Amino acid sequence: MQPLGKSRMEAFSDGVVAIIVTIMVLELKVPHDASPEALLHLAPIFLSYALSFLVVAILWVNHHHLLHTATRITGRELWLNNHFLFWLSLVPFTTAYIGENHLAPLPVALYGLALCLAGCAFDLLRREIARDQAGDPAMAALHRRSSRTNAVSALLYLAAVPLAWVSVWLSVFIYVLVPAIYFMPRNIEKMAAGKQPA
Amino acid sequence: MQPLGKSRMEAFSDGVVAIIVTIMVLELKVPHDASPEALLHLAPIFLSYALSFLVVAILWVNHHHLLHTATRITGRELWLNNHFLFWLSLVPFTTAYIGENHLAPLPVALYGLALCLAGCAFDLLRREIARDQAGDPAMAALHRRSSRTNAVSALLYLAAVPLAWVSVWLSVFIYVLVPAIYFMPRNIEKMAAGKQPA
Amino acid sequence: MQPLGKSRMEAFSDGVVAIIVTIMVLELKVPHDASPEALLHLAPIFLSYALSFLVVAILWVNHHHLLHTATRITGRELWLNNHFLFWLSLVPFTTAYIGENHLAPLPVALYGLALCLAGCAFDLLRREIARDQAGDPAMAALHRRSSRTNAVSALLYLAAVPLAWVSVWLSVFIYVLVPAIYFMPRNIEKMAAGKQPA
Amino acid sequence: MQPLGKSRMEAFSDGVVAIIVTIMVLELKVPHDASPEALLHLAPIFLSYALSFLVVAILWVNHHHLLHTATRITGRELWLNNHFLFWLSLVPFTTAYIGENHLAPLPVALYGLALCLAGCAFDLLRREIARDQAGDPAMAALHRRSSRTNAVSALLYLAAVPLAWVSVWLSVFIYVLVPAIYFMPRNIEKMAAGKQPA
Repeated sequence: MQPLGKSRMEAFSDGVVAIIVTIMVLELKVPHDASPEALLHLAPIFLSYALSFLVVAILWVNHHHLLHTATRITGRELWLNNHFLFWLSLVPFTTAYIGENHLAPLPVALYGLALCLAGCAFDLLRREIARDQAGDPAMAALHRRSSRTNAVSALLYLAAVPLAWVSVWLSVFIYVLVPAIYFMPRNIEKMAAGKQPA
Repeated sequence: MQPLGKSRMEAFSDGVVAIIVTIMVLELKVPHDASPEALLHLAPIFLSYALSFLVVAILWVNHHHLLHTATRITGRELWLNNHFLFWLSLVPFTTAYIGENHLAPLPVALYGLALCLAGCAFDLLRREIARDQAGDPAMAALHRRSSRTNAVSALLYLAAVPLAWVSVWLSVFIYVLVPAIYFMPRNIEKMAAGKQPA
Repeated sequence: MQPLGKSRMEAFSDGVVAIIVTIMVLELKVPHDASPEALLHLAPIFLSYALSFLVVAILWVNHHHLLHTATRITGRELWLNNHFLFWLSLVPFTTAYIGENHLAPLPVALYGLALCLAGCAFDLLRREIARDQAGDPAMAALHRRSSRTNAVSALLYLAAVPLAWVSVWLSVFIYVLVPAIYFMPRNIEKMAAGKQPA
Repeated sequence: MQPLGKSRMEAFSDGVVAIIVTIMVLELKVPHDASPEALLHLAPIFLSYALSFLVVAILWVNHHHLLHTATRITGRELWLNNHFLFWLSLVPFTTAYIGENHLAPLPVALYGLALCLAGCAFDLLRREIARDQAGDPAMAALHRRSSRTNAVSALLYLAAVPLAWVSVWLSVFIYVLVPAIYFMPRNIEKMAAGKQPA
C-alpha cells in the first residue's frame, strides 16, 4: 500500500462527526406552547441527546488519539474509516428512535446494536493501524490495552441488546456505564501518552 | 498530559459552529404566500436569528483567539472543548423556542440559561489553557482581564433568567447589551495582541 | 491589529458555505408519487437551486482568491467575514421563498436584496484586505478592477428589487446575467494571476 | 493559469460530501411506534442509504487519490470541482425519491442519471488534472486506465436509465455491480501507488 496524507481522512471524519452531533439536537423539537410541562416533556429526549453526544464525542476523541499516532494511511484504512463512519451515522436515528418511543425494548436494543457495530468498526480501524505500529513495543502494549477496552465496550453493548426485553433499565444502565468506564482509566489517551510522553 | 495537535480540535469546533449557525437559519420557515404580512410575521424570528448568529460568532472568534495563543492541547482541554460545544449546540433550540413563542418568559429565560452555560463552559476551557500560560506575565494579565469579562457576561445572562418573569424586555435588553459590551473594549482581541503585537 | 492565521477563517467559511449549498438542495422535496408530472413540478425549484448554487459557488471562489492573496488577518477582517457569512446564510431562505411562491414579485425582490447585501458585505471584506495590499501596485490595480465588478453586480441586484414589481422576468434576467458576466472576464481569477503569474 | 493551494478545494469538497452523506441518513424517518413491522418497513430506505453511502464514499476516495497526485490547482479545476459537487448534491434527492416510491421506474432511472452525471463530472475534473500530468509516463498510463474505468461506470449507469422501464431489478443490479467492480481492481488506488510506490 502507498502512503496517503491523513489530513483529508481526518477532515472528512471531523465533518461527518460534527454533523452527526448537530443532527441529533434537531430531534429536540421546539414546543408550540411556552408551558413548563411542554418543556419537561422533552427531558427524556434531552437526556438521550446528552448521552449520544457523549458517546460520539468519546469515539471522536479516540479517533483523534488513534490517528495522532498513525504516520501513514493506506487505501484499506480509508475504507475502514468510511465503514466506521457509516455505522456512526446511524446513531442519530437510533437516538431519535428511543426519544420518539420512550424506552420501548426495540428502540433501546437497536441503540445498543448501533453502538456495538460502531465500536467494532472503530476497533477494526485501530487493528489495521496497529499492524503498522507492531515494531514499536510501547505502541504494541498500548494497542493490546486499547483492544481489551474496546472488546469490553462492544460486549457490554451487545449484551444490552437482548437485555432490553428483560428490562430496558438494564440496557440503559449499560449505556451509562460504558462512557463512565471510559472516563476512569482513560485508556487511549495514555496510549498516545506512551507514544509522546510529556 | 501529552501534547496533541490543536488543528483537529479547531476543525471539529469549526464544523460544529458552522452547522449550529446554519441550523438556526432553517427556523426561518418559508411563508406559503407571497404577501408582505406573511414576511413581516417572520421579523421576530429573523431578529432572534441575527442576535444568536452574533453571539455564536463572538464565541467562535474568542475561541479562535484563545486557541491561537495555545501551543499544546491536552486530553483535558479536548474534553472541556467538547463540553463547551455541547452547551453551544443548545443555542439553536433556545433560539427557535423564543421564535416559536414570541417572547414568553420561559423561552426567554432558557435562552439566557443556555448562553450562561455556554459562556461558563468557554471560560473553563480558557482557564485550563491559562494554566499552561501562567509563566508568561503578559498572557497572565490578559487572562485576568478576559476572566473578568467572561464573568460579567455570565452573571448578566444568569440575571436575565429570573428577570424574564419580571419583564421579558429586561432580559432582551441584557441579550443585546452583552454583545454590545463585547464590541466596545474587544478584550480577547487585545489579549492576542499582547501575545503577538503587530 | 495583530496577525492571526487565516486558516481557521477559511475553514469556518468553507463549512458555512458547504452547509448553505446543501441546505438548498433540501428544498427539493421528494414527490410522494413517481409520476413524471410530480417530478416536472419540481423544475422551477431545481432551476432556482442550480442558480443559487452557482451564485454561492462564485462567491466562494472569489473568497478563495481573495484570501489566497492575503498574508495576515486582523480581528476586523474576521468580523467582516462573519458579516459576509450572515447575509450569505439568508440565500437558502430567499431561494426557497421563490421556489415556494413561483416567481411572485416579493420573493423575487427579496432574492435580489439578499444577493446585493451578500455582495456588498463581500466587497467590504475585500476593501479591508486591499488596504493591507495598497503598497503593491499590481494588487492595487487588481483591487480597482475587482471593486468595479463588485459594484456593477451589487447595482444590478439592487435594480432587480424594484423591477420585480414591473416584471419578475426582468429581475430573473438580471439574476442570470450577473453570473454570466462573472464567467466572461474572470476578474478575480486574473487578480490572483497578477499576484502569482504562472 | 496560476497555481492556487489545493487545501481549500479539498476542505470545501470534504464539507459538502460529509453533509451529503449525513443528509441521506435523515431520510430514515423514525417510526412513531416501536413495532418490528414499522422498523422492517424502513429496510428498503436503509438499503438505498447504504448503497448511496458506498457510492458517495467511492467518489470521495477517488477524489482524494486524484487530488493527492495534483500539485497545482487552476481556476478551471476549481470550477470543474464545483460542477462535480453540484451533481453529487443531487444524490440525496434521488436516493430519497427511490426510498419514498419503492422502486418505481422513474425514481430508479433518475438515480442512475444522477450517478452518471456525477461520474462524468468527476471524469472531466480528472481529465483536466491529467493534462498537467501528461509529462509523467507513469501518471499518464494510470490516467488511461482510470479513464476507462470511469467510462465503463458512466455507461453502465446510463444503460440503467432506460432499463428501469424494462425491469427495475436490472437497474438495481447495475447499481450494485458498479461499486462491486470498483472494489475488485481498485484502479485509482493503484494509480496513486504508481505515483508513490510504497
